[in-house]
Amino acid sequence: MKNWSINKNRFEAFSDGVFAIAATLLILELRIPEPRVNLPDGGLTQGLLALWPLYIVYVASFATIGIMWMNHHALFHSVTRVSYPMMIFNLLLLMLVAFLPIAIEVLSKFGLSPAAVEFNGLIFLMIAIAYGILFYVAAPTIQGPRTFARYFRSWTFWDSVGAIGYLLGIAVARFSPIASIIIYSLVAVYYALPSATRALIASGQRNEG
Amino acid sequence: MKNWSINKNRFEAFSDGVFAIAATLLILELRIPEPRVNLPDGGLTQGLLALWPLYIVYVASFATIGIMWMNHHALFHSVTRVSYPMMIFNLLLLMLVAFLPIAIEVLSKFGLSPAAVEFNGLIFLMIAIAYGILFYVAAPTIQGPRTFARYFRSWTFWDSVGAIGYLLGIAVARFSPIASIIIYSLVAVYYALPSATRALIASGQRNEG
Amino acid sequence: MKNWSINKNRFEAFSDGVFAIAATLLILELRIPEPRVNLPDGGLTQGLLALWPLYIVYVASFATIGIMWMNHHALFHSVTRVSYPMMIFNLLLLMLVAFLPIAIEVLSKFGLSPAAVEFNGLIFLMIAIAYGILFYVAAPTIQGPRTFARYFRSWTFWDSVGAIGYLLGIAVARFSPIASIIIYSLVAVYYALPSATRALIASGQRNEG
Amino acid sequence: MKNWSINKNRFEAFSDGVFAIAATLLILELRIPEPRVNLPDGGLTQGLLALWPLYIVYVASFATIGIMWMNHHALFHSVTRVSYPMMIFNLLLLMLVAFLPIAIEVLSKFGLSPAAVEFNGLIFLMIAIAYGILFYVAAPTIQGPRTFARYFRSWTFWDSVGAIGYLLGIAVARFSPIASIIIYSLVAVYYALPSATRALIASGQRNEG
Repeated sequence: MKNWSINKNRFEAFSDGVFAIAATLLILELRIPEPRVNLPDGGLTQGLLALWPLYIVYVASFATIGIMWMNHHALFHSVTRVSYPMMIFNLLLLMLVAFLPIAIEVLSKFGLSPAAVEFNGLIFLMIAIAYGILFYVAAPTIQGPRTFARYFRSWTFWDSVGAIGYLLGIAVARFSPIASIIIYSLVAVYYALPSATRALIASGQRNEG
Repeated sequence: MKNWSINKNRFEAFSDGVFAIAATLLILELRIPEPRVNLPDGGLTQGLLALWPLYIVYVASFATIGIMWMNHHALFHSVTRVSYPMMIFNLLLLMLVAFLPIAIEVLSKFGLSPAAVEFNGLIFLMIAIAYGILFYVAAPTIQGPRTFARYFRSWTFWDSVGAIGYLLGIAVARFSPIASIIIYSLVAVYYALPSATRALIASGQRNEG
Repeated sequence: MKNWSINKNRFEAFSDGVFAIAATLLILELRIPEPRVNLPDGGLTQGLLALWPLYIVYVASFATIGIMWMNHHALFHSVTRVSYPMMIFNLLLLMLVAFLPIAIEVLSKFGLSPAAVEFNGLIFLMIAIAYGILFYVAAPTIQGPRTFARYFRSWTFWDSVGAIGYLLGIAVARFSPIASIIIYSLVAVYYALPSATRALIASGQRNEG
Repeated sequence: MKNWSINKNRFEAFSDGVFAIAATLLILELRIPEPRVNLPDGGLTQGLLALWPLYIVYVASFATIGIMWMNHHALFHSVTRVSYPMMIFNLLLLMLVAFLPIAIEVLSKFGLSPAAVEFNGLIFLMIAIAYGILFYVAAPTIQGPRTFARYFRSWTFWDSVGAIGYLLGIAVARFSPIASIIIYSLVAVYYALPSATRALIASGQRNEG
């Protein structure tokens, strides 16, 4: 009974495409300063060094998309049937991931101001929430009734870190924008830590074996 | 007798690529305002809030591409052989989908003016028509003579909504550009409603089973 | 003996990616005019209508990439083993295809001037030549000694049209830039004509059956 | 025992996507000069010819990404199981490859200055190092204990050329920026030479046979 199922390969290919493009477009919004005639090398070396907060944001954003892709991968590795609601909430997630380059543009144009850093955190937060919803929608389709509970427990653990980190970063922005972008980076580092992901993947794999 | 058939996987991969890229490029054309020195935070918060009509257009456009991709997927799920005319009209559809980011650029530069909103509606309308043509071309290749009739009937139902909505949005633009972009969004919501899509997919699946 | 062969799927996926992205990026270089305060609608309607030569170039360029992709597809459908030289000359072809968006940028910035149209024709010509070389390199790997001769004959026929058309367009540019872009479009139309492609695909298919 | 393995197809598809997009985005950062009213053709012909150093950098960068993709392909052709560390260091490599378009932007804006060319070389160098790390991490997973040693030896040979070339280019930049970009190009030519790649692929293939 293959009725209703959506071709998982094409679903994943489209998602992979958006993840890969959004990550690669980030750099287009990282604007380097205009040459200044009165400085040696047009002020390039100095200008590139002054962009260091943007490099942190670039790395945090690229890593966030990359890790989101890995989570997406781990989740749908275990999903055998892509339902219609999954498709809709997947589109929502992709729409927000594709929105991320604008945060780099805002930081490029307005510098490391509190509002710019809050905007960045807000997008990260919305991505985390959208992934949480997708996770919630996709989890029950994994075979076996106990799997859902296990996934739900692991979801609580995982996404809390992201949501708390982004909320903390937004709250801190008024006092220290640099602290905010460091917090965003730490969230990415947390999710890149093997142990947690191993647990997630392992819990998915156990259902297969 | 596999002669004449075109590799469906590569055909779908190329189409998926254009859909995913066009959707992700939309954000590059959403231009944020320049910093203003006489305002706190350079006027960023105020400037980002003032962009709200563009966020609606962004969501409507991203959703339209996403739904178009889902329709494309549902259609070619049932098509067993990609013919040469399908390839040509598929290129036409992709060309128009790839044209959509310019509507965001126009709205970013010219604001929510009637002409900008009409231009946006015109592109949506052309995409709907191109999909209608592709649908008409692709439908007969699905096996069984009754399938075509069933698809043709469902096509009338489906694409009418898009065409009528976009025409209505264009007609209304002179009086209220905001009403137009809300209509474009409603078209996207209509197509995202599960019932209609379910009917489309189901009619395709029935032919397989 | 699978030694030396390169994974054809990944080779095709990378090529498809570049074709799809280059086609979709074209629109980013099509610059719409800035709003003018003294005109109704900021001069948008007038400005969009005045861009008509660019729409022709956009369609011709998108169609050229699309058709190039179809040819690429037809060629490698018949190639069973991707050799190292094919990979290098494929990279050369992709590098030139990815260069095409700059022709749109030149035409956007400099208008329909002879030099801009010549530059456009030159890129088209280089793409045609690169495809010719790739074709020449790839053809012998198709099984059977008579296949090469058949492919070589068909190559002469096909690529002559492109090369002659582009050379003619470049020659004509000084007298009428509009004539040039119409010639470039006619080349695309010629290659989109089913008969010719059918012949190409059929000759490849005959070798398989 | 398939536990812990990550879907190699999706891993490769995501990587291919970033490689293809980064290569195709290069052209967007190659800025053509603005039209000058007092020159025939707005100074286009002259302006396009004056960009010749950027064409060299474009070709070197596109070729570097293409060759990096080929190496990536050859490496993971032999890797049977994608581990978690491979995924993280692969993300690092992709992040740096996706950073390359900004080098073109710097050279477009600041011209062929020593600092711009050093910045370009630095990115190339970081890509080479990231690939070296990925190589080191991925090599042991290839079956058989002798394979690692063979790969490590071949790595020493291969990546030394890249690292030495880029360091040389950076060192030479203060005296002759043109010499630097020629050295970067020669590194690309070296890696495109069949013999070396053949050796790499062959050593991987030997393990399979």
